[in-house]
Amino acid sequence: MGRMTALDGITRPTLVVDRARAQRNVARMAAKAAASGTRFRPHVKTHQSLEMASWYREVGVDAITVSSVSMAEQFAGDGWDDITIAFPFNPREAAALLALAAAGVRLGLIVDSLDAVRQLDASGIAADAWIDVDAGYHRTGVAADDATGVVELATAIRSAAPRLRFAGLLTHAGHTYAARSRDEVLRIHEASVAAMRRAQASLGTAGFDAPISIGDTPGCNAADAFDGIDEIRPGNFVLLDLQQLQTGTCAEDDLALAVACPVVGRYPDRDSLVVHGGSAQLSRDAADGPGGQPAYGRVVELDDADTGWHLGDPPAYVTGLAQEHGTVTGPRAALDRHPVGSLVLVVPAHACLASASIRTFVTLDGEPLDA
Amino acid sequence: MGRMTALDGITRPTLVVDRARAQRNVARMAAKAAASGTRFRPHVKTHQSLEMASWYREVGVDAITVSSVSMAEQFAGDGWDDITIAFPFNPREAAALLALAAAGVRLGLIVDSLDAVRQLDASGIAADAWIDVDAGYHRTGVAADDATGVVELATAIRSAAPRLRFAGLLTHAGHTYAARSRDEVLRIHEASVAAMRRAQASLGTAGFDAPISIGDTPGCNAADAFDGIDEIRPGNFVLLDLQQLQTGTCAEDDLALAVACPVVGRYPDRDSLVVHGGSAQLSRDAADGPGGQPAYGRVVELDDADTGWHLGDPPAYVTGLAQEHGTVTGPRAALDRHPVGSLVLVVPAHACLASASIRTFVTLDGEPLDA
Repeated sequence: MGRMTALDGITRPTLVVDRARAQRNVARMAAKAAASGTRFRPHVKTHQSLEMASWYREVGVDAITVSSVSMAEQFAGDGWDDITIAFPFNPREAAALLALAAAGVRLGLIVDSLDAVRQLDASGIAADAWIDVDAGYHRTGVAADDATGVVELATAIRSAAPRLRFAGLLTHAGHTYAARSRDEVLRIHEASVAAMRRAQASLGTAGFDAPISIGDTPGCNAADAFDGIDEIRPGNFVLLDLQQLQTGTCAEDDLALAVACPVVGRYPDRDSLVVHGGSAQLSRDAADGPGGQPAYGRVVELDDADTGWHLGDPPAYVTGLAQEHGTVTGPRAALDRHPVGSLVLVVPAHACLASASIRTFVTLDGEPLDA
Repeated sequence: MGRMTALDGITRPTLVVDRARAQRNVARMAAKAAASGTRFRPHVKTHQSLEMASWYREVGVDAITVSSVSMAEQFAGDGWDDITIAFPFNPREAAALLALAAAGVRLGLIVDSLDAVRQLDASGIAADAWIDVDAGYHRTGVAADDATGVVELATAIRSAAPRLRFAGLLTHAGHTYAARSRDEVLRIHEASVAAMRRAQASLGTAGFDAPISIGDTPGCNAADAFDGIDEIRPGNFVLLDLQQLQTGTCAEDDLALAVACPVVGRYPDRDSLVVHGGSAQLSRDAADGPGGQPAYGRVVELDDADTGWHLGDPPAYVTGLAQEHGTVTGPRAALDRHPVGSLVLVVPAHACLASASIRTFVTLDGEPLDA
């Protein structure tokens, strides 16, 4: 970026959002959910930005998902009053949850054991209680095919009515992130949805009406429709990243986030640059780099009119990280345009942690976005 | 931790510092430096805590190292007025550096190219200018054996006197972090110091007096003395972590940092717990876990009197991370003492990023420490 651009004022690692692409990603997911009659409750952990969350409101979204009580507090402070915390109920945070409920927030909480239901009941918190279901990811949740366990949990929740309301079955099929193709994502997604339906059927036999809520961006992006799914909670879909591009669940011109990194060193003997943008900013979440090595990001170049960016060609990748240093490697033609003092734009391997770490957003026009 | 402890008020992932151990680690490094007549300029990126940095003042330290201009601003705001920024000079941050210098901060800056020296000279910043030397890590720096390059850089810096003052040769032998034993650390350390001496000799021949500054904790912990080294800049040494314990450059009772993580799920069928404490808190920096898998931390247990902690036996490790979730695996005897709602204390694989991410410190007595 030798010429003047709207990003020239950037001095430190900064998140640059292509607002047009991000809003298009939002509109597309909202339309797909609407076509299936599915509630769209986006996860805001990907950006944790109040201003970006307001873009969801513009397409009719009135409920969000977060992954921590502190994130719920942040967004409740901006007027969101229907928030699912897609992280297991933590009894130690009962006081903070009681305060949110007292402030008028409709809380969705997730539980996967009778012990957790008992502790939630004892806390006195009024909430929609979802059963966290393990549909194949094996992180948290009661096994989808544990019919006895699922019915016991729903029964325990019902016994705490009306303070607890049984909301349904919720899962995060996070194993789609390990898939290496769109077809593989779809296979995992369909197996996960099928497992959720079996759990739903077990509850139906026991007299429970159990809506289904699913979460992951790879599955939500790859699926053509959400028939029979009551709610989706994707987060990453709004910004996307190198992992999703490589998996084939998004197109190059869907990539809506890049990290602007100042170039501070050039090492032509080893085909590398060093930028300010290290593990403290990009995180060690990795995609596939040259020769099967991990890549923490890939360089993009601004279009001539500065209205968007495209993948650099020949490609250059962030192949090494220290806390503040990023090492960018690539052929000379990719690196020569970036002298010391210039900015390199990097699409991160995974948008979520990069956003959570840096917290300073601007649009391609150089306008700040509220975090 | 079934009984009452000073940590009972913790509700979210929190950094717990064993102050007695940390202060002993500081005193030990200060004494070793003093015995060699070596300046001790600790790196504060490990904790970025103003209160912990004040412990350095208590042993006579009056100068620190940071890894970013924003960190320099934070510590200058607390009265530190001699700060080396051990990250390549970023011309885009010239205005912030000029402001620090104008506020009376003696700045140390590092450069490794004639281009960087020219841009630093043009910026008008008054600073101690160090030549960043590559003594084997191959991240940044002019090659230690590039005598021509080293002399050219020193000459260029001298030509910008008196605003720039040639400070000497600085390196970070970060490749000691990849070593797997104390002996291997020492071999790397000694080779790195020898390379620095060769660069020093090249400069001596050209009439330059060039002090040597070295950085890494593994080397500084493993070495018995710092003869002929003018300055050390270790950072991690104050808190230490699982990586350093496994490498053999610290003892178990030197470990001064643990992350308190609330337990939110129990999965006996797969020998695991899930805690609040994921990649957003612990980072994906890894040590060696069971069976050669990565471990992001290891569980420690409080001593009976709550005056310290010890490695859990049988061992349990953090073997999986999502953004907010940590999966702790281990034998039943290690996990059974940790019900949902309790706290697990985890020594992180790498203290620096965990501290940089969480930012909320308490001592073992439950007293907050200023970040």
